[in-house]
Parts: sequence; C-alpha cells; structure tokens
Amino acid sequence: MDLNKIILSDEARKELVNDRRWLHAHPEEGWCVFETTWFIVRRLRSLGLEVLAGIDVIEPDAVMGRNEALVLAAQQRAIEHGVPKEFLESLSGYTGAMAILRTGRPGPVTALRFDIDALPIEETDDPQHEANAGHFRSQNPGFSHACGHDGHAAIGLALCRWLSENREQLKGTVKILFQPAEEGVRGAAAMAAKGIVDDVDWFAGGHIGCSAKLGDVGVSHFGYLATTKFDLEFFGQSAAAGSPEKGRSALMCAAAACLSLGSLPGHSQGITRVQIGKFISGTGRNIIADHAYMQLEVRGETTEINDYMAKNVEQTVKGLALAYGVDYKLTRMGEAVTYKGDEEAVALLKSAAREVPGVHSVVDMNAKIGSEDCTMLIRRVQEHGGKAAFCYYGCNHHGHHRPDFSIQDETSLPIGWGTFARFIAEINSQD
Amino acid sequence: MDLNKIILSDEARKELVNDRRWLHAHPEEGWCVFETTWFIVRRLRSLGLEVLAGIDVIEPDAVMGRNEALVLAAQQRAIEHGVPKEFLESLSGYTGAMAILRTGRPGPVTALRFDIDALPIEETDDPQHEANAGHFRSQNPGFSHACGHDGHAAIGLALCRWLSENREQLKGTVKILFQPAEEGVRGAAAMAAKGIVDDVDWFAGGHIGCSAKLGDVGVSHFGYLATTKFDLEFFGQSAAAGSPEKGRSALMCAAAACLSLGSLPGHSQGITRVQIGKFISGTGRNIIADHAYMQLEVRGETTEINDYMAKNVEQTVKGLALAYGVDYKLTRMGEAVTYKGDEEAVALLKSAAREVPGVHSVVDMNAKIGSEDCTMLIRRVQEHGGKAAFCYYGCNHHGHHRPDFSIQDETSLPIGWGTFARFIAEINSQD
Amino acid sequence: MDLNKIILSDEARKELVNDRRWLHAHPEEGWCVFETTWFIVRRLRSLGLEVLAGIDVIEPDAVMGRNEALVLAAQQRAIEHGVPKEFLESLSGYTGAMAILRTGRPGPVTALRFDIDALPIEETDDPQHEANAGHFRSQNPGFSHACGHDGHAAIGLALCRWLSENREQLKGTVKILFQPAEEGVRGAAAMAAKGIVDDVDWFAGGHIGCSAKLGDVGVSHFGYLATTKFDLEFFGQSAAAGSPEKGRSALMCAAAACLSLGSLPGHSQGITRVQIGKFISGTGRNIIADHAYMQLEVRGETTEINDYMAKNVEQTVKGLALAYGVDYKLTRMGEAVTYKGDEEAVALLKSAAREVPGVHSVVDMNAKIGSEDCTMLIRRVQEHGGKAAFCYYGCNHHGHHRPDFSIQDETSLPIGWGTFARFIAEINSQD
Amino acid sequence: MDLNKIILSDEARKELVNDRRWLHAHPEEGWCVFETTWFIVRRLRSLGLEVLAGIDVIEPDAVMGRNEALVLAAQQRAIEHGVPKEFLESLSGYTGAMAILRTGRPGPVTALRFDIDALPIEETDDPQHEANAGHFRSQNPGFSHACGHDGHAAIGLALCRWLSENREQLKGTVKILFQPAEEGVRGAAAMAAKGIVDDVDWFAGGHIGCSAKLGDVGVSHFGYLATTKFDLEFFGQSAAAGSPEKGRSALMCAAAACLSLGSLPGHSQGITRVQIGKFISGTGRNIIADHAYMQLEVRGETTEINDYMAKNVEQTVKGLALAYGVDYKLTRMGEAVTYKGDEEAVALLKSAAREVPGVHSVVDMNAKIGSEDCTMLIRRVQEHGGKAAFCYYGCNHHGHHRPDFSIQDETSLPIGWGTFARFIAEINSQD
Repeated sequence: MDLNKIILSDEARKELVNDRRWLHAHPEEGWCVFETTWFIVRRLRSLGLEVLAGIDVIEPDAVMGRNEALVLAAQQRAIEHGVPKEFLESLSGYTGAMAILRTGRPGPVTALRFDIDALPIEETDDPQHEANAGHFRSQNPGFSHACGHDGHAAIGLALCRWLSENREQLKGTVKILFQPAEEGVRGAAAMAAKGIVDDVDWFAGGHIGCSAKLGDVGVSHFGYLATTKFDLEFFGQSAAAGSPEKGRSALMCAAAACLSLGSLPGHSQGITRVQIGKFISGTGRNIIADHAYMQLEVRGETTEINDYMAKNVEQTVKGLALAYGVDYKLTRMGEAVTYKGDEEAVALLKSAAREVPGVHSVVDMNAKIGSEDCTMLIRRVQEHGGKAAFCYYGCNHHGHHRPDFSIQDETSLPIGWGTFARFIAEINSQD
Repeated sequence: MDLNKIILSDEARKELVNDRRWLHAHPEEGWCVFETTWFIVRRLRSLGLEVLAGIDVIEPDAVMGRNEALVLAAQQRAIEHGVPKEFLESLSGYTGAMAILRTGRPGPVTALRFDIDALPIEETDDPQHEANAGHFRSQNPGFSHACGHDGHAAIGLALCRWLSENREQLKGTVKILFQPAEEGVRGAAAMAAKGIVDDVDWFAGGHIGCSAKLGDVGVSHFGYLATTKFDLEFFGQSAAAGSPEKGRSALMCAAAACLSLGSLPGHSQGITRVQIGKFISGTGRNIIADHAYMQLEVRGETTEINDYMAKNVEQTVKGLALAYGVDYKLTRMGEAVTYKGDEEAVALLKSAAREVPGVHSVVDMNAKIGSEDCTMLIRRVQEHGGKAAFCYYGCNHHGHHRPDFSIQDETSLPIGWGTFARFIAEINSQD
Repeated sequence: MDLNKIILSDEARKELVNDRRWLHAHPEEGWCVFETTWFIVRRLRSLGLEVLAGIDVIEPDAVMGRNEALVLAAQQRAIEHGVPKEFLESLSGYTGAMAILRTGRPGPVTALRFDIDALPIEETDDPQHEANAGHFRSQNPGFSHACGHDGHAAIGLALCRWLSENREQLKGTVKILFQPAEEGVRGAAAMAAKGIVDDVDWFAGGHIGCSAKLGDVGVSHFGYLATTKFDLEFFGQSAAAGSPEKGRSALMCAAAACLSLGSLPGHSQGITRVQIGKFISGTGRNIIADHAYMQLEVRGETTEINDYMAKNVEQTVKGLALAYGVDYKLTRMGEAVTYKGDEEAVALLKSAAREVPGVHSVVDMNAKIGSEDCTMLIRRVQEHGGKAAFCYYGCNHHGHHRPDFSIQDETSLPIGWGTFARFIAEINSQD
Repeated sequence: MDLNKIILSDEARKELVNDRRWLHAHPEEGWCVFETTWFIVRRLRSLGLEVLAGIDVIEPDAVMGRNEALVLAAQQRAIEHGVPKEFLESLSGYTGAMAILRTGRPGPVTALRFDIDALPIEETDDPQHEANAGHFRSQNPGFSHACGHDGHAAIGLALCRWLSENREQLKGTVKILFQPAEEGVRGAAAMAAKGIVDDVDWFAGGHIGCSAKLGDVGVSHFGYLATTKFDLEFFGQSAAAGSPEKGRSALMCAAAACLSLGSLPGHSQGITRVQIGKFISGTGRNIIADHAYMQLEVRGETTEINDYMAKNVEQTVKGLALAYGVDYKLTRMGEAVTYKGDEEAVALLKSAAREVPGVHSVVDMNAKIGSEDCTMLIRRVQEHGGKAAFCYYGCNHHGHHRPDFSIQDETSLPIGWGTFARFIAEINSQD
C-alpha cells in the first residue's frame, strides 16, 4: 500500500463531517446508545463488513452502571425514531458494536476503539456555538456530545469505509470497536470481558482535544489514574424525630462515611484520591432518614493503588453500616486502570501521526490526572500478548464537559482518521 | 347563659361535619391556605362577625418557612378555583384569619386558636379509608389533612356560629384565630408578633387525637419541647474531581456539620435534641459539590435549653463554613417554645370539658415529646398578663402524619366544640 | 428504746471527729483502700461485731475498673504502714467490709451503706483550708478525700459503736456496709452481686453535702441518672507516615469514634448523655498510631435508657473498629442505675431526720444530674423485696471534687449519724 | 592536587571511627546538642579553622520546634559533663557550628552540610548490637543515634582535618556545616535564614544508608516530599460531665479536626499527605476536657503543594476552633521543601563518588517518600545562584529509626568522606 495515498477523498471527508453532525444532533447516554448503534450497524452492513452488536460485544456480567429503566426508555425512543424492533431485540438490551475485516490473508490482528456515548449536559443555546451556528444542535433535551465522542464515532465509520475500500491492499484482520458508556468508565470492561480483543496483536485508542490543540498529536507512554466508581446506599429505619430510639439514620451514617472515606490513608507509591460527589438523603426535617444515596469514586496513580483504595472503601463502608446499625449496598459503577503503552506501539502511532496532513507536531503527552476506560481494553490486549498505545488528536476546544464544548474546526477529524489509518496500514498493509 | 343549653343543634352539627369534609377535600399546605382562608372569611362575614385576614393577622417580619414560589402557585390555583382576586389582593400574600365578637358589654377578652393547614402527604387510596368511603377525599394530589386540622377549623367555624347566635348572652370580647402553617411550627410566631392577642385575658388551644381516645379530654399543665427549625445551605466552589485544589466541597462541609451538630453537648437542666432530616448535595460523582442543602431542628426541654441549642447550631455552622472555606446561609424555618399552662385556665378548661356530652373522662395529659406552635401565642398572652391552657379532645385515630390518618368517628368534633364553647361561656357569659 | 436518748456522747462525738480526721489524712483510692479497711475492721472487731471484709463482701466477677498494678502498690504501701500481712492475705486483694449485728431476737434486717474511697486530687496547700488549719491534711500525695467519704466512713463507725452499745435494746439484724470504689461507680455492683444485701428488709444510704446545706436533710423520692463507664482501646498497626498503606491508625479510628459516639441518637423517654473525657494516642508526629485509649461514659434518665445508650456504644465501637481495620477492647469500668425510693422508707428516713438535733429542715431532694452507685445496692434490695431510701445531710462546702473541698463544720457529721441511728431505731428497736 | 592521593591515612581513619563512636555514645537531641557542639568546636579550633557556633550560625526568628525547658536541662547536663560555661554562654542557647577554610586564593565557595542530632529512641540492649559489642553504646538513657548522624558528624570532622592539612593545595573557600535538629526537619531553616550559605557556589549534602547498601553511592536528581510539621493545641472550658453546657470540649474539637484534616482535598499536581501522629486530651472520664494537644504533619510532592496543604490546615483549624467555641494555637515545628538538584553539581558528585575506593556502583537515587531539611539549605543556595546536589553513601543497616539501627560496617564512613573530599577537590583544588 502506498502510504502517501492514505488521504480522505472529498466525498469521504464530507461523509465524515456529516456523520459527526448527525451523531451530534442525536446524542445518547451511557448504555442507551440504541439509535447510535443502529446508525453505525446500518453503515457497517452497507460497507460489507462483518458486524457484531449489543449482546455479541458486551459481557453482561461485567456491565457496570447500567440503569434498566433508562435503557427501556431509550429503546422506546429508538422505536419511535424508526429503529427496527427486530434489530433492538437482537441486541438483548445492550448497545455498542464491532466491525471486523477479515482479509483472508495471514497477518496480525489490529484493533481500534472509538467511544460513542454522550453526556447528560444540556447544550448551550448561544447562537455562536458551533452546533447552533451549523444547525446540528442536540435534538435530545438535556443531553449533548460535550466530550467529542460524536467525532470519535464518525472517525471510526470513516475508517470502516477506508477498510472496506482497501481490503485488497490489507492482510490479517482489523477490528473497529464502537464502545458505549465510556463516560463513568463503565463500558470498556464489559467489551474486554467478552473476549473480543483477546486475539489482538496491535491496539490503539485515542481522544480528540484534551491537552492537544489543532495540529498537534500527543502520544502517551503512560498515564491516567486508575479509578473505581461506586454508588453507595445506606438503608436505615425511619422514625419521628421525637422517638430517636426507634430510628436508624441512614443520613448520619452517610455523613460519617464522607469523613471516614475522605480521610482514608494514602499510599507511599503514588497519588490517591477519594471524591464524594453526590449525597441525597431524607424526606423531611423531623423524620429520621431511612435512606441515603451517594456517588463516589477513588483513584490511584497505579492500578494497585486504586485497588487498595477500593478495598478500603469496601471495608470502611461495611464497618460504618455495622456501627450505625443500617444495611448498605455498594455497587461498582465504573472502572478504569492506569495506562502503560508498549513502546513499539507508541512508536508506530507516532510515526503514523507524523505523516498525516495538517499535523504540525507529534509530542509525548501523558495524562497525570483523569481516567479513561480504554485502559481496560488495553490491559486485556496486553494480558494476551498484544501491544497497545493511546493518543490525542488536537482541536481548539475551550474545555470538555461543558455546555459549550465544541471541536471548533472539523479539520481535526481527518487528522484523527489519518493517524489511525496509517497505524493500520503500517501494520496490516501488504508489501 | 344556661350552660346546660350549650348543645349543637342537629343543623349546626350537620354544618360542622360538612365543613370538616369540605376542608378535608381541599387541603392546603403551610402558608398557602388561600382557599381555606376564603372559605372561612366568607362564612365569618355571613355570620356578621368582625373579620381580619392575611396581612391583618400576620406580621411579615416574623414569618418563617414561607416559600414565595409555592405561595404564588397556590394563589393561582385559588383563582382557578374561584377565589376572588380582590380578596386575594387584600391578603397581601398572607393567609389565616381572625373572627372578633365585640359584645359592647364590659368583660374579659377570650381567644381560641384553631390551626388550619394540611400536610404534604398523599392520602391513601384504601377504599376503607374514612375519606374514601365518605367521598370527601383530598382533591389536591400530594396533600391531605393527615393531622386533623380540617376538624380544628370546622370546630372554629361552629364556635363562630354559636358566638353569633348567642351574642346577646355574652359580654366582653371573643376572638377566634384561624392559624396557617402550624406544621413546621411556622405560623403562630407571626400571629403573636402582630399583637392580636396582646389584649387577651383568657386563651385556649387544643388538638384532636394525639394521646386522647374518643370520649377523653386531656388537659395539659405543662409540656412540649421547645424547638427551632433550620434550613442550612453551604455554598462552595465546583471543580472537576481531578483538580481538587480548585474546588471547595459544600458536601464535605455539610457532612462534617452532621457530625458536629449531632454531637453538640447537652444540657444539665433537661432533654436536648438535634435531628438532621434532609441532606441534598452534589450534581455528579466526579464534580466537587458547590452546594449542599440541609433541613434540621433542635429541641429542648425548656425554651432556654432550646435557645442554647439554637445558638450552638449558629456557632457550629459559622465555624465549619470557615473551616471548609465555604459560605453558608442558616434560616430559621419555624419555632415553638415549651408550654406552661396557668392553673386557673387549666381548671376552667377541665370543668368545661367535664360537662360536655360524650365526654367520659377528663385527665391530665402533658406532652413529653413533640412540639406545637400554639405555645408561641400562649407565651405572648402570658407575657401580657393573660392566662392560657391547652387540651386534647380524643378520637380513635391510628396515628398522625400518615397517609391513612382519620378521626374515624366525627362525634369527636362536637366534643371539641362543646369544650371550647363552655370555656367561653364560663368566662364571658352574662349572669 | 427511748428515741430521745439517741444522742452522741461527748466521747463518741470526739471519736467520730477523730476518726474522720484520721481517714482524711490517709486517703486511698478506689479498690486500693487497704489501710482504710484495716482501720475499719480493727475497730469493728474491738466493738465485738461480726465482720466480713475483702473477698467476703466483694464478688470478683462483678468487679469493674480495678487496676491490678495499683492494687499491688497499695498493698505494699499498707504493709509499710503497718497493716498485718495476714490480714491483707485474708482479703484476697479486695477491700471494703461489713459489720453485722445479729441481736438473736426476731426482727427485720436493716442495712446502711457508707462509701469509703478518696479521689486522685491533690489537696490544696491553702493554709486556710480546713484540713491544713486542723493539721489533718492528706499524707498521700496526689490523693484526697475531696468528696467527703472520710465523713461517711466515720459516721458508719460511730453507728457501729452505737449498735454495739445498744444491742440489747435492738432486735433483728443490722448490717453496716463500708464500700470501696464509689468514685467511678465501680464498687457497689460487686457488693450487691455478693448477695450480702439479699436478706435486707430496710436499706438506707446517704451523702454529705451536695445540694444540702448545714442543718438541712434532703430525702430523695427518685433521682440520679443511670450510667455506664467505659474504657475503650483501639489496636491498629504502626507504620512510618511515609508508608500509610502499611499502617492502621488507631488514632483516626478513635477520633471517628468521638464523633459517632457523640452523635448517638437520644431517647424519647428522657435525658441521654455521652461524654468522652480522655483520649491518649500516638507516639510521634510521623508514626501512624497503633494504639488509642479513651475514657468515656453514657448516662440515661432511666436505667433502660442508659442500657440503650450502652448497647449503642458497643455497636458503634464494633463497627468503627471494623471500618478502620483495627482491633478494640471495650471494658465496663463502672455502672449505676437510677434511684426510685420506696415511699415507706423515704417516710421513715424523713421522720428520723426531723428529730435529729441540729436539723432545721427536712426536704425532698431529687438529683436530676449525677450518678451514685448506691443505686446498685438499692436495686438489689428492692429486687429481693426490701425497701430503700437515700438522703443528703448538709454541710457548708463550696463544691465537691475540688482541691479545696471541705465540710467546713464537723457538726454535720453527728447529723448524719443521728439520722441513720434513728432510722435503725425506728425499725429495729424493741418496744 | 593529585586526586588519587585523596585517601584517609590509617591514623585519620582511626580518628574518624573513634569520633563516630564517641558521638554515638553521647547522643543529644534536636536543639540540645551542646556537648556535641563543644566536641566539634574544640576539634575545629585545634585544626586552626575559623569557627562559628550557636547564635552565629542560627537565626533565632527562624527556629522551629525548640523547647526551652529541654534546652536548659541539656545545658545543665553539658556543664556537668565538663563543657565550659563561657562556651555555652557564647552560644546564647543555640547549637550547631560551621568551620570555614578561607584559602586566601581566589576561587569558588563550596559548602558541605552534616547533621549531628540524635533521636529519642532507647538503644537496644541486644549484646549482638554493634554499639553494645563495640562498647560505645549510648550513655544518654532514652536517646540514641538511630539514624546515623553520628557518622555524618564524624565524616564532617574528618573532612575538616583534611582541609586543614591540605589548605595549600586548595583555593577559594570551603565551609563545613554541622547542623542541629534535622530530625523533625527543624534546624536547616534557621541556618539558611542566618545567611551563612548565601555566598555558596557549590553545595552538597548526603545521608548514610537509606536505600543505599555498602559500596553503593546514590546521587539524587530530584526527590523528597516537601513537609510542614505542626503542633496543634485547643483550649476549651472544663466542666463536670453533668453540666455539659458549662464546658467547651477541646477533645471533641480535636477529634473533629482529625477527620476534617484527614479529609483535606488533594492536589491535581501530585501527592499530598496529612498525618496526625499524636493526640493527648483530657484528665478524666467525667470531666469535659479543656485541653487537647496534637502533633501532625502535611507533605506535598512539590513545595507549592505542601504550602497549599499547610494553608488548608491553618484554615481548617481556625474554623473548627470557632465552631467548637475554643481557642487554639498552631505552631510550625519543622519544615522542608522538595529537592531539585543542579545537573552540574549532580554530575560532579557522581564523578567524585566513582573514584572512591570501596565504591562498587554509583546510581541515580531519588527519594519518592520521606523528607529532609537539607532541602532548605539547598533552596537557599539555589536562590542565590549556587548549585547543589544530594547523595547517599550506603551501609548495610536494617532500618532507620529503630532501637537496633546500626551502620554495621564502619567502612561506609570513609566512602562518605571520600565522596565529599573529592567533590571539594574537583571544585577547589589548585591546578
């Protein structure tokens, strides 16, 4: 394959932008990406690629942070929006998809992962805002693609077209993963557990924006904090305030949990974090609260440190429930590990990025903070002997997870596409 | 006046029951009793009594726990239900009323207080439930008269009819107060502050049910815990969990407040209580919460002890806000003092009750727990030299503040009426 | 017996004062009252009374708050001060005594209890101070009779002389208990458990001073808070601060315990208290503390409420130890129940006091605060069908448990003696 | 100077060992190193070096963690041990010293720092223990050189002899600092503040042992956590437990402080730590504690992070004192910053170490945990344009800060000496 010819045609570039805009207008959250999955699957089928979706790419036992009521509502909405019932049934309630190109020729297995979910953030109504000015603003009130996963998914689709059109120049196997529920680091673990990347030799993932500006590609050697997300509930006994001996306050137990969890000991080997972000308890001033609900997360500079923190959370919560005479339920809602790239894969991704039109600089970029569940897939690949790397393709955003997030210049999308296409080409092209 | 003739006519008894049922079907909450007030005022006018209502019986500066948005919505609903706009305007946003009978003859001033507000409790749909079987269930979804104030108000109206019909047999002045917002002990302080009971020589209040069963009248010598209700808010600084140094967690401050307030020192002179009943904070797991909202209350066996507790709350909250680098707002939402009846008034109420048809026993009944804001009016009366007492007229309920609260047998209402009518008669009747 | 002749002779009065001064000069603490016990036993023997002491009046299994090392040191000191070794051996390490007068004539069993221990308070060196001016100041540095138990014991001895001298005028049986370890409410439970008051028909105890001034005798119908005293230890894992994951901080667990115990819910039926008075933990700034030691107590307006509090302490501590991954040891160091006198016994004590020379007034005096372990003996008597009462004989002190506590005027002692002697005489004298 | 001739003579080696053993036998703590200072000063004078000591090398305003009572007792002991009074007076209560060699020839200023204080750890009585077997065990009960500063000081003295003997081969100026109170990171700040290293061009410090084994020299590019040590006291109001409203519990405030300080938010830029190591409060179970004393420390991966933590401690403590109505005193007892070596100095130190007889390997060794107040001097040097580095010279110890700490093989001492002598020689030798 002539690597210099890995350039998007005008038509393909137009499709890439249009796909991204359609996805932007139809944001879906977490495990609820039914319309999005249907959009992707329909396209993959039209491209003649092998397609797995829903239950075929997700291991239910490893699913975290999935709310059945939200899923049912999302399915209903998808039906109203024209997604075929049979298709939905085939998913068994799960979303996400994977395209597979089996060239039939011997060669390595390469996989790329794109996350496709949106956020529960109402998009700004500022008329200057990219999606408002461009008339592709979110049609799903209360939700928007405020982290750029619309771009990720569109790049994944453009890669699939390129794979389909260049299948004769390629060897081995290429897999393109479209992952739900990256927000809250919930989805990757279930894709990894399904075993669909166990045969992968080379793996890459990436993210638009973050610390990278337009024209920059950052490639990571290591980074991300490992994290575990928990929902925590305490179940006490309600009583009138006048009869305190008849009640068991879930609220007071939860308050004590905030302080005990907040003051968990750290770790000599690196950063630890505990964050309690939500606390809902009680029905009225003079009623002893019989229920408390908390959302929290721990992080660690290494996976081991994070496991240590998560284990401490479990012990602390169990003990406090006993102390306050209440029951509890601690649920893992998401999980990600730290990232340690394989130097060969990192080098490949770097060399791929350097040749992409529009790229001004390729730099080392290691995330000291934040978490990303692509690390769960990367760990799985590495456990099975594969090599993996992660990168950022820049855009001139002014902040993720904001109502006014925008990638500003859609020329960032072909850069992402080009980096990944060249990565595949360097690995799977026939000489 | 011939005391033996203080008996409800069949017609009056029917009106009493019908009034109670109409009020039961139209429950309104706290400061929002606009339809209820209109129902009362219209009747009082028809009886030819002097009437004050809204701003004329409520001192705005002393109002606690009033939510403007709820008041506006309630006014709107009242208009839709046919309450005249001019009447609503005359209230200046406040509810409650007072009837005055000035006989023109020299004599003492006697006042009785009836509370008229409902609770935010959805009435049970059990068909056996009194109001369902009798077809007068709450027409205001989410609200019901689950503490019997419908009966209180109806008795007050029946007393007004009796006053109107017997004005020639009476001397001095009689005032009948219809008080909003007893729930949360919010309303009495503002009626007291208005000065409308400053000239009162004899005062009585009462409650249906509680520890008294049908046929019993309990009269209190002392009782009730003094209490102060607080809403507490902390205002911090939001930040991503990954940048903890940029945030100030209102949630963590509120959790610390739970423990520090919960462990406030007690008092050598009697019972103290702290109860935190509600805690709402945070928007998401990985966002440092910039706001926390709490509902709490303190109680004390005496008014002094309660004041000591309330002062400690203020100091604790101020210090914790400083410690956590957050702002705070602590609002008094309600207040009641302890009750110490005047023995002369207690004796009068007892002797009045003993002669009422249907009363089997009259006993001492002193509330060790709970609070009642009638105590605020009683204190005001006593500060101005008047004498006061409080009583319970029994009914066979199976628990207040429950979806299935019911007074079961409406013969309890004439007993309440009879007790108060005789109380007035013993004081204000012409020999 | 001629009750009018129950008056101390000048000689007996002198002995009473001298005994009290000797005891004051030789204060011993808690379970360590070996010299005191020897002083008492020697006297009782000389009076020809039956005497039980040490292990014969104390049930070891029910002993609380006894420190073996302190006991051994006290025994050593007693030996140095001339107490015979054989006597000490006969005690088996326990102190306290009981005198018994068996008249041989049928009649009731009457018992009186006197507590004999001192406090770990250094006596003031103010030359005006009673014991300094009178040259009988504490010879045991760091300890003093700062609660008047020296007077109690001396009165008990004076009663024994009177019993001995009047045995022919008496019938039935009289027991005089000399109890160790009242401070910390530790000793009475073990005397009660020994069964030595199980046959008692009439029982009285009392205290000098408190709310009673010289010339007043207060008799209690009810009173005292029930209480349980705890020592609490947490055992964690030490580690350098730099390796927090290797440690388990007993200090942090103990701090959390302060807040959780401090915020234990109260009780609808009355006053509750939690007090943590001592907290010792840690060896250095940068070492994770592997040990924490706390002294705490709970109280309740009734024995049931106190039991509820004590049970909550147990549950809370167990849960927190689990939460923090540490071990714990919770030890009951003392216990007292509430007091409910028998009206017949109260009346007897009142009538006895009224006739005592020097008594100006006999009043009802019910302790709202504080605790007294005589209640443990009283409960035992009442459980076996006996009747009991408790009283105060006044003195012009200016505060108990202070370095400068003094009874000021030793004429208070004959008043205490007279009240108890008449109490016995009214019950056990032969007509 | 012929660098190959920088070898200790047998005599000098014997003196080095003898000095170390004498110092080991005479351990002194923190700011109390009077005998040690006299031992050093006497030697320096005999070597004909310029000497500054006590107040001349310590800036009183910058002194942290100095206890006047301990200092006075140490002075007294020094006098008893023969240290001349006039010498002690010349120190004005401060310890530590600096030798200066001014060659009179132009050239750079080089400084080396040796810390000289011991630890409050009782030396083991295991006969196998190095100092017991060698008959130089600590003669100061409760104290020992359990961190090897005896070796540090002895090496410094050996360097002074070498400087004295080789002064003609050197140019510029050389300063040898003997620093008190490194334990608790208390002393360096006051030496830095005195300005005595402001003219320094090249600076080196080091430590025996740590992660380096015998034959290894580790040189640091960066490392150490910045730290601030605090003593914290709360002053409340004592009262009997029965009258909680009269007290203000310093104990409860301190317990709340443990949880609030323990749960201080972290920092996005690196590791943070809070450690509370000591907590002493209260006099008895039923007395509200009027005093609490705590020892704590914070650390940060950078000096900025540590400052952020220290500032948060200040704010938290101030607020909690207000919340609990108590007074407080927060005292800085020690401080160290992070270390960032200058690459030129690091390279010099490495090349110096490589040539030292007995050195098998020279490696990069950067401390991830722990703190060292030499960083305060290094920062001062760097602020004035000098270059600095830090190293470890190995020994086969089995753990610092233990009763059985020993350097095992005294051949580690000449390695330390050799490294520093060559460092000086490379900088200050005349070609």
